[in-house]
Amino acid sequence: MSAPALDALIEALRKLPGVGVKSAQRMAYHMLQHDRQGTVLLARALEEANASVVHCTVCNTFTDQPVCHTCSDPQRDKSRLCVVETPADQAAIERTLSYRGLYYVLMGHISPLDGVGPKALGLERLIARFDDGLVGEVILATNFTAEGEATAHVLAHAARNRGLNATRIARGIPIGSELEYVDLATIAHAMVDRR
Amino acid sequence: MSAPALDALIEALRKLPGVGVKSAQRMAYHMLQHDRQGTVLLARALEEANASVVHCTVCNTFTDQPVCHTCSDPQRDKSRLCVVETPADQAAIERTLSYRGLYYVLMGHISPLDGVGPKALGLERLIARFDDGLVGEVILATNFTAEGEATAHVLAHAARNRGLNATRIARGIPIGSELEYVDLATIAHAMVDRR
Repeated sequence: MSAPALDALIEALRKLPGVGVKSAQRMAYHMLQHDRQGTVLLARALEEANASVVHCTVCNTFTDQPVCHTCSDPQRDKSRLCVVETPADQAAIERTLSYRGLYYVLMGHISPLDGVGPKALGLERLIARFDDGLVGEVILATNFTAEGEATAHVLAHAARNRGLNATRIARGIPIGSELEYVDLATIAHAMVDRR
Repeated sequence: MSAPALDALIEALRKLPGVGVKSAQRMAYHMLQHDRQGTVLLARALEEANASVVHCTVCNTFTDQPVCHTCSDPQRDKSRLCVVETPADQAAIERTLSYRGLYYVLMGHISPLDGVGPKALGLERLIARFDDGLVGEVILATNFTAEGEATAHVLAHAARNRGLNATRIARGIPIGSELEYVDLATIAHAMVDRR
């Protein structure tokens, strides 16, 4: 191969999460061989997203406005604040149509092994919002992983210290699942949290 | 999410081979959150590769010249032509330093299920080269998959019809492997092809 531009493309694709050198090669060959139009579209999409996508100054999600669509909606219940890890988690909750409060999107979780503590995650900004006089309940909807649980724990502590009601979304058996195939930790939690 | 540019980026990333909607979301969030510089570099790399990478007019590999580095090397043995499926396969053979002939890069293989026959693969161009008066041996180094074997079969037939010597790279036990862990078809072939 005597095409430095091809080598540079493979190198740049390797920076994508979950893409190693073999996948990057396969992607570059595929795009250049079969999808020249897709190559140009992806280049433009990257530039446009880089130019226009910013964080909402209120809830920290990705948006192209200073304040996102959800935060500027006057119909939203400002007394409830749901904390999630990613915009995808927020979108999943929105699709349920079961929540009309506001959100805060952490864009990550506390992960000491990766050097992400409360400060790197920018938790001060969220905790400052606990004092805005509008929020009454903080709903912790971080993932049920070790990192998500640690993040929820820190935030619950901060919220309760400020006299707010801090709740965690329920752990339990997923709808449609059969008990014998559910992991034991989930069944144990479902038994303890029975109502 | 109220950022059309973000949705467009996720859509464009989904066009990459092996990338579904979840991976595309994860890639977009990661790039915009943690690697803005990588976002710009990838956009530029895509545009530059699209603008400068073409197929070598002689061997069909990716290059930024009309004739690639390997084909224009006067030291190469023009009597040997090694046929491979991808530039990555060519690079693997080059790294062995055991071959000083020329190449032809198919950029794929015959795959009737995907609608890729000898014509779609452009085999006429390769077969025309069999008549150039320089090639004496065609070395078939396509993969040992059903598609690679079919491609090799078609090319061997065409080469022999033109009085050329057509050889297939050897099948057998990989160096460093233990017999009990090698699949039975490989062992059977290694027995038959013993020398």
